[in-house]
Amino acid sequence: MIIMEAGATKEQIENVVKEIKRFGLRADVSRGEYRTVIGLIGDEREIPFEHFAVLPGVKEARMVETPYKLISREYTKLIEGAGERMVIKVGSIEIGGAEPVFIAGPCAVESKEQLFQIAEGVKKAGAHILRGGIFKPRSSVHSFQGLGAGGWEEAEEALTWLYDAGKKFELPVITEVRGETQVDLVAEYTDILQIGARNMYDQDLLAKVARKGKPVLFKRHFGAGIEEFLSFAEYLAAEGNKAIILCERGIIPIGKGKNYTRYTLDLAAVPAIQKETYLPIMVDPSHATGRRDLIFNMSCAAIAAGASGLMIEVHHSPQEALVDGQQMITPEELNDVISACQKIHKLIVSGRSKK
Amino acid sequence: MIIMEAGATKEQIENVVKEIKRFGLRADVSRGEYRTVIGLIGDEREIPFEHFAVLPGVKEARMVETPYKLISREYTKLIEGAGERMVIKVGSIEIGGAEPVFIAGPCAVESKEQLFQIAEGVKKAGAHILRGGIFKPRSSVHSFQGLGAGGWEEAEEALTWLYDAGKKFELPVITEVRGETQVDLVAEYTDILQIGARNMYDQDLLAKVARKGKPVLFKRHFGAGIEEFLSFAEYLAAEGNKAIILCERGIIPIGKGKNYTRYTLDLAAVPAIQKETYLPIMVDPSHATGRRDLIFNMSCAAIAAGASGLMIEVHHSPQEALVDGQQMITPEELNDVISACQKIHKLIVSGRSKK
Amino acid sequence: MIIMEAGATKEQIENVVKEIKRFGLRADVSRGEYRTVIGLIGDEREIPFEHFAVLPGVKEARMVETPYKLISREYTKLIEGAGERMVIKVGSIEIGGAEPVFIAGPCAVESKEQLFQIAEGVKKAGAHILRGGIFKPRSSVHSFQGLGAGGWEEAEEALTWLYDAGKKFELPVITEVRGETQVDLVAEYTDILQIGARNMYDQDLLAKVARKGKPVLFKRHFGAGIEEFLSFAEYLAAEGNKAIILCERGIIPIGKGKNYTRYTLDLAAVPAIQKETYLPIMVDPSHATGRRDLIFNMSCAAIAAGASGLMIEVHHSPQEALVDGQQMITPEELNDVISACQKIHKLIVSGRSKK
Amino acid sequence: MIIMEAGATKEQIENVVKEIKRFGLRADVSRGEYRTVIGLIGDEREIPFEHFAVLPGVKEARMVETPYKLISREYTKLIEGAGERMVIKVGSIEIGGAEPVFIAGPCAVESKEQLFQIAEGVKKAGAHILRGGIFKPRSSVHSFQGLGAGGWEEAEEALTWLYDAGKKFELPVITEVRGETQVDLVAEYTDILQIGARNMYDQDLLAKVARKGKPVLFKRHFGAGIEEFLSFAEYLAAEGNKAIILCERGIIPIGKGKNYTRYTLDLAAVPAIQKETYLPIMVDPSHATGRRDLIFNMSCAAIAAGASGLMIEVHHSPQEALVDGQQMITPEELNDVISACQKIHKLIVSGRSKK
Repeated sequence: MIIMEAGATKEQIENVVKEIKRFGLRADVSRGEYRTVIGLIGDEREIPFEHFAVLPGVKEARMVETPYKLISREYTKLIEGAGERMVIKVGSIEIGGAEPVFIAGPCAVESKEQLFQIAEGVKKAGAHILRGGIFKPRSSVHSFQGLGAGGWEEAEEALTWLYDAGKKFELPVITEVRGETQVDLVAEYTDILQIGARNMYDQDLLAKVARKGKPVLFKRHFGAGIEEFLSFAEYLAAEGNKAIILCERGIIPIGKGKNYTRYTLDLAAVPAIQKETYLPIMVDPSHATGRRDLIFNMSCAAIAAGASGLMIEVHHSPQEALVDGQQMITPEELNDVISACQKIHKLIVSGRSKK
Repeated sequence: MIIMEAGATKEQIENVVKEIKRFGLRADVSRGEYRTVIGLIGDEREIPFEHFAVLPGVKEARMVETPYKLISREYTKLIEGAGERMVIKVGSIEIGGAEPVFIAGPCAVESKEQLFQIAEGVKKAGAHILRGGIFKPRSSVHSFQGLGAGGWEEAEEALTWLYDAGKKFELPVITEVRGETQVDLVAEYTDILQIGARNMYDQDLLAKVARKGKPVLFKRHFGAGIEEFLSFAEYLAAEGNKAIILCERGIIPIGKGKNYTRYTLDLAAVPAIQKETYLPIMVDPSHATGRRDLIFNMSCAAIAAGASGLMIEVHHSPQEALVDGQQMITPEELNDVISACQKIHKLIVSGRSKK
Repeated sequence: MIIMEAGATKEQIENVVKEIKRFGLRADVSRGEYRTVIGLIGDEREIPFEHFAVLPGVKEARMVETPYKLISREYTKLIEGAGERMVIKVGSIEIGGAEPVFIAGPCAVESKEQLFQIAEGVKKAGAHILRGGIFKPRSSVHSFQGLGAGGWEEAEEALTWLYDAGKKFELPVITEVRGETQVDLVAEYTDILQIGARNMYDQDLLAKVARKGKPVLFKRHFGAGIEEFLSFAEYLAAEGNKAIILCERGIIPIGKGKNYTRYTLDLAAVPAIQKETYLPIMVDPSHATGRRDLIFNMSCAAIAAGASGLMIEVHHSPQEALVDGQQMITPEELNDVISACQKIHKLIVSGRSKK
Repeated sequence: MIIMEAGATKEQIENVVKEIKRFGLRADVSRGEYRTVIGLIGDEREIPFEHFAVLPGVKEARMVETPYKLISREYTKLIEGAGERMVIKVGSIEIGGAEPVFIAGPCAVESKEQLFQIAEGVKKAGAHILRGGIFKPRSSVHSFQGLGAGGWEEAEEALTWLYDAGKKFELPVITEVRGETQVDLVAEYTDILQIGARNMYDQDLLAKVARKGKPVLFKRHFGAGIEEFLSFAEYLAAEGNKAIILCERGIIPIGKGKNYTRYTLDLAAVPAIQKETYLPIMVDPSHATGRRDLIFNMSCAAIAAGASGLMIEVHHSPQEALVDGQQMITPEELNDVISACQKIHKLIVSGRSKK
């Protein structure tokens, strides 16, 4: 990590970047109000930091050994003017801002009618962003894989529905991108690109998605520790894209006997991650619990834990859904959830600020 | 399970119990307002239920195969007059009642002065029950094992402090009992007996503790699934003691890399368990996270998830504590926690009742 | 699943396939010596099997609900002439055959000299197939990512070294393919394509790799249960490629405290998986343990458990390796491992055949 | 840890022990051929080692911070004359010696006839020690709890059968002790006391069992990491009893979907533990897999991994067993297992000694 002097010139900064490249690494340049910090991307162990320390305009040069440094709180602290948390703007919506953000919609897009009906419902219920799965990752090749499995034309048609529904109901839209070849197409039609839990470790997909420059919602793999989760988020940041929305969606349950929830929702990861990084973190209680009767409580709990928002699966008629009907709630139930969560958020913020 | 007719006589009930014993099993007799239900304790697979079905006063006789039946919601539903949740009274405190209950105090009792100072603090902060560890289970034989390790006399002295502090500050008291030989002594001085996570599977200890007839706070082992947790709570109920307060305190973290929380707090277990049993469930955020900076958020989250109360470690001077200083909060911080939790509880109850 | 009559004609089979497609599913046609079995790929729940049962040449038509059916032992049993285990031929090497197969080589290809030196060493030690990583999946973007990270030209150069080393020392070669865009290039130069543990869930990569028609070594993700592992192997089979070599390489360790092995090697998965599928399963003790001092014992244990072979990381000078030096053994140590494993394999086969 | 000079007198040693007690700790005195090492039991952090360093006869005094030091390889290395591994003698049987040891018998003692019939069978099959459960730990209070659950008289009768069967067939005997009140009785009739996986954390039971002075077979809890396992074995050693036979019996399976083995047998723990401690470690493939069809392979694998022996459940008629019939093998099958294991052991020892 190279910390530049307050008055370092553009040329001095460019010179440092050039030197970094000469040693085979890439550079991440973060300009704060008064100060510029340059992160090194790659293996720093062979870098002669004493050489960098004496370059013109350099205040300090030192090695950082954590696997996530570009997204770490340590790093951002050095940049004066940087706030407590990064706010990611999607249209007029602010993720990581003063209010919790609610992403809602069906698990899978099934038809134009279904999507528009649900979009209208979630808008009325107070949601801010519309979700709808088109390329569905599934545990079995014999299950419905989303309309995206029908070929590029069918996928594009479903994407236009999502785009149109977003326009009509004034909701930014998000969908999951599962493979590298889908990235360009999906990026054309959506405001946020989602990387699902199963693809968290897929570093080639991560790099390709990050390069589109759009905000990325990045889900934790169900077998990943927090350190691994953040280390893979770093793959996104290393491509120069820090508009990363982290998302906790449950980890593998432990213990013998039958499971009462699909995964174990790790809510303490929310404040723990917030101490490590300035990126916002959301929670998906739908996939985590797999049970619609637990959504109300676990949504409230996630907000109480400090989450910047929720991603909730909603269907106007859950029992008829093609995928995950048992975990989707109705727009009316979503309204109750949002209302309770907003009140809890206020309480938490005021309770915290007293301290 | 034997369901008696509405007007079954005492003799008829006793006759059924006698028959159950004749087949080598024990009986659990639950008398509701109008109806009596008799649970069989032991292996029902060889029981001739058709024989029981025709005994005088018997309405229905059938096998129940779940490993927890005496504490199951199914079972209690049959008893008319039984409420949605069992309320366990400890003095004037109601656990599982209308308000969340807060158990607070030091991880380990260190001295009379320390205990009284903390007891005064937690009372002022609004806590309802005083905790203090005397027999401490520890991962290393080379760590401080609590004053109980000093011999019976020292243990009894520490217990009298706990008893006296409870009397002085009008707080029922609870401490952990770790081995069978400690049960009689501890039961003399405390209002609730605690069985710690590490002893969850210790069925001989469970039986001995249950037979004291006092309320038992029963913690989930960090390697136990929900089914196992409830199956071992059944060992307590099988001794005729259903004043069982369940407690979630975190399970083994999953994933590679360093742990950011000591255990993984499984908050979705709270509503999931409430669907299975009528017993109240509390949450211990202190042992689960091991981090005082996460206690406020995770306490609020636990109450939002529906917990009947919290067990929180408090010390007037955490940095001087002999055990677990890094996870204890001050009485002032406890006050903030209780205040926020009570408001969230109200929100949750009213948000839920709308539905 | 459609079981054809013994004398079913080509036209009858084609007709069944056409009908399957008409219902929106794909067909997997397995021709045995006397009988042909047609598996349905996709969601069978809406299929009118009674309609298929009366098509000309059809003996039986029924639903199979397991998530892995094309690779299941059940399925292959129906095909007369199919043996106990599928033998996958790579040149003259038989994986799943009478003798255990040893894949060996460096974790990462570092230079032509390094690769040729190690290739010579492992050939002398008795290994059958040469491995060498070019596209390395890594937990940190700041670690060495393999020569493949240097761009397509550098990747292709490293692949030609691998190809040439294979030719020179008469060893088929294998390397990992990490992203969809790498598949075509890697398939040109290698005999077996490896899908690493981190990519196990990456179904788009799986489909693309399978379609190349070459044998695939498919590693279990460290967070995956056996059922999930086999369900994702089914994604490969669903593309018509059943030359799948499964590979156990360790799962996430459980329990508090420091880890003594990098992952937990799940050797009982070896015989358990062999009861489920006819595919061969190998073991990678290097990544599982991360410790060169455990390789000898765990290699022997894997063969004793019934593995069809081992994948072992070897370096002529482990302490100088760029990646994973602490888990690589020397060619001399490999020789001891192979020699002991071959003897144990004989003992196991003869001990088993007595029964 | 206090290392005495070669010629330190008995008085000097006693003086050091006295000093240790004065500081509130206990002492573990290990006399080697030439040297005596004194381990401190308790929290060493406040101990003034410089004070001990100058006591007469003391060569060196220093703090050891690992949670297991009395059983660590580090510690024993200091004692000249101590071998590579501790050999625990039970009658003429040597556990941890030149040959693997086989403990076999029924999961639960059901009757005198059953026990004698099986004892005869396992003796003929080549087993060295007879096992038979009397106090059975069970997940459900509604399952058969062993004859020990019938009261002290019934328990004692079953223990006499075990004792008599041992005498008749010249097999030392072992049974599990589950609660503190059972220890005295069980110790009267058995040669080895077993502490089961579920009681691994029960430090009061451990202390009581260790004090009987008999060899203890100590099983790893299914949720315990290796460090925790060894830290609790240290509780036994801290009572002055180092005749500890460790036993790996499977840990909680990871991953979604159905389990193919009851637990995950962690065989790499065997050599990993042997690097840490001089205590012998055995493996129980019966409880780990829960499947009789995997016993042959996993027994061979355990011996290949370096285990000092196996504990295997055997029944003359597994399908009629009251407990765990699906995992028990017949005496004939045991004979095949022992025969193959003995050959593999020879191979491993000779393969290793080459290096």
